[in-house]
Amino acid sequence: MSPANHNPEIRKDAVNNRMVIISPARSRRPSDFKSKSKPSSNPNSDAHQTCPFCAGNEHQCAPEIFRSPEYSTSDWKVRVIENLYPAVSRDVGVKSDDVEYGHADVIGEVRLGGFGYHDVVIESPVHSVQLVDMLVSEVADVLIAYKKRIGQICGVGSISYVQVFKNHGASAGASLSHPHSQILALPVIPSTVSTRLNSMKEYHNQTGKCALCNIHTDKLLIDESTHFISVSPFASTYPFETWIVPRYHSSHYHEIGEDKAIDLGGLLKLTLKKLSIQLDDPPYNFMIHTSPLQITSSQLPYTHWYIQIVPQLSTIGGFEMGTGCYINPVFPEDAAKILREIEVP
Amino acid sequence: MSPANHNPEIRKDAVNNRMVIISPARSRRPSDFKSKSKPSSNPNSDAHQTCPFCAGNEHQCAPEIFRSPEYSTSDWKVRVIENLYPAVSRDVGVKSDDVEYGHADVIGEVRLGGFGYHDVVIESPVHSVQLVDMLVSEVADVLIAYKKRIGQICGVGSISYVQVFKNHGASAGASLSHPHSQILALPVIPSTVSTRLNSMKEYHNQTGKCALCNIHTDKLLIDESTHFISVSPFASTYPFETWIVPRYHSSHYHEIGEDKAIDLGGLLKLTLKKLSIQLDDPPYNFMIHTSPLQITSSQLPYTHWYIQIVPQLSTIGGFEMGTGCYINPVFPEDAAKILREIEVP
Ligand SMILES: Nc1ncnc2c1ncn2[C@@H]1O[C@H](COP(=O)(O)OP(=O)(O)O[C@H]2O[C@H](CO)[C@@H](O)[C@H](O)[C@H]2O)[C@@H](O)[C@H]1O
Ligand SMILES: Nc1ncnc2c1ncn2[C@@H]1O[C@H](COP(=O)(O)OP(=O)(O)O[C@H]2O[C@H](CO)[C@@H](O)[C@H](O)[C@H]2O)[C@@H](O)[C@H]1O
Repeated sequence: MSPANHNPEIRKDAVNNRMVIISPARSRRPSDFKSKSKPSSNPNSDAHQTCPFCAGNEHQCAPEIFRSPEYSTSDWKVRVIENLYPAVSRDVGVKSDDVEYGHADVIGEVRLGGFGYHDVVIESPVHSVQLVDMLVSEVADVLIAYKKRIGQICGVGSISYVQVFKNHGASAGASLSHPHSQILALPVIPSTVSTRLNSMKEYHNQTGKCALCNIHTDKLLIDESTHFISVSPFASTYPFETWIVPRYHSSHYHEIGEDKAIDLGGLLKLTLKKLSIQLDDPPYNFMIHTSPLQITSSQLPYTHWYIQIVPQLSTIGGFEMGTGCYINPVFPEDAAKILREIEVP
Repeated sequence: MSPANHNPEIRKDAVNNRMVIISPARSRRPSDFKSKSKPSSNPNSDAHQTCPFCAGNEHQCAPEIFRSPEYSTSDWKVRVIENLYPAVSRDVGVKSDDVEYGHADVIGEVRLGGFGYHDVVIESPVHSVQLVDMLVSEVADVLIAYKKRIGQICGVGSISYVQVFKNHGASAGASLSHPHSQILALPVIPSTVSTRLNSMKEYHNQTGKCALCNIHTDKLLIDESTHFISVSPFASTYPFETWIVPRYHSSHYHEIGEDKAIDLGGLLKLTLKKLSIQLDDPPYNFMIHTSPLQITSSQLPYTHWYIQIVPQLSTIGGFEMGTGCYINPVFPEDAAKILREIEVP
């Protein structure tokens, strides 16, 4: 049966307990709206003159947290800075001694002060360079900056979870085109994270194994490096969604060492390059899915971090918003085969 | 404290158990991408000549299920048709006697045939008319078509949940501009629905009340009609998100009677009109959140349908994808006040 003739399938994976409908027929539907302009290549042309993230414009930014290399001046490679328009605030109380917040005023409702850290990682001093074009060692510098910043935040007792993410291109939510990613630290464990923990715990209870150590690679493997694999997940929510998963069991991203970061940098770059070749430089997001900062030793056997990379090829609609169930027109096995076979020059 | 100076808050509601960060500071961040073209008014200019949903082009459509009025010919008002590119298929087995599907091949994973119904509701024979411009009785005709179609699907034992939704404008996911909505019937209960049931059950256990009968209206009420209210939800995930909630306790949308459908049509039209005035004809989605078709009598006291209307003003990013937690720059109290005070001519 050729891929285009596949019947639709409903799948749910063992990691996120998230349902998806895989339906090749959907890819043939017509549209009478003009197609989106390519969003990743559409910044205002004078952007880099006024871009706060460019080298030389450091004074336009919110305060710096650190830079790499540590004692560099104008020749920095990566800067981690405060977000000037933060979603959560360093200066707000989260605890119930703060009169205005910190108490649920109706059963079932939660209302907390929006305490937390919201940082930006400037991945390069140069406006037009993208992660995919950088040297492996430069990609690794960015990955190590994430690690270092999470390590600092770890010390703050009231932070429960740290989300690292990247928006590339306007359709992936980016408001600035200079290469950057973000780190957002929260005083609560978000719902997808607790759902994932529960789901992986159940898998472990039933099999004695970690769901990600045991992930399908049969028809779903794309590439492998010394310490990592890239795969199409069994229940991909988006076409060409790709996960990079450590081959070693590890609960927390920020425990990664320098060697492994360089290895990961290589596989991340390769994956982004393949997606760029196959999908013509698509807008994309990536998210590092790690474990809550404080986990118990009983949670260690079934928690395992990974990176989810999602090319943004279409806009979701009311069905996904209503049900949380995504419609993906591309079978993960087909996406994996295509990506596996791409030769990167 | 003026709204713009509000500190950020983290909220979770009693209905969906969904976390949101409300952070007015976010609305001030700059963008170097060109702003989106207004998506709801941007169809190709010759669209209605070739539009399959226009009166006269019925032969270009997938088969009709019914029309209203029932025996109308070219003067139909609403048509319910099969989706030509369905996400789920009428012709696929869902059961395990289908060799290729119907069994989880690894613990924790689910793999089912994509059985279900996927229909389109053509809301008007006229290409350029929008729901917001239609007569109240015409809006009610659409609402009654939803009811009737769900009623038919109810008879199919293997369907568990029916999602009614509308995508208006390209940024809300619409691929066609002719006024329409969709009905998708699934053989499984989607995750947001089971999460909602659990959350409302817990609220009921603790208070003896239905979370939606007891919804906050203090500072959050927008409008009310005989049988319905419109409110900004306490933990709005999107700016100006609005819910229309029956004032009477009811688990299933499709039990609505003709009188109430007309009343609802009036409030839906008013709400869409206010959003259109305030936000300049924004792209939007609406979803009817109803209960699974088969619920037990013990679930009746805490299940209550409602309509969620979401203007699509921005693109979500990696943070929301990673955590399931949305960042909303507008406090629901402020949105409610603005919408409450709009005078509709
Ligand atoms: N001078 C300066 N100094 C320091 N920081 C500066 C700055 N000027 C701008 N910034 C910050 O730089 C960040 C750039 O981030 P992105 O381009 O990845 O997307 P953004 O966070 O705007 O929103 C996207 O991501 C979020 C989170 O996923 C979604 O809520 C949203 O809808 C989506 O558009 C912004 O957060 C902005 O506040
Ligand atoms: N001649 C014909 N006869 C019958 N039906 C026809 C037809 N021509 C087209 N159709 C159907 O008409 C529908 C139009 O629906 P919408 O414009 O609301 O968005 P669509 O479903 O394309 O995708 C949006 O909504 C879905 C569900 O939320 C998301 O998965 C997706 O990403 C988003 O773009 C399509 O489903 C299409 O298959």
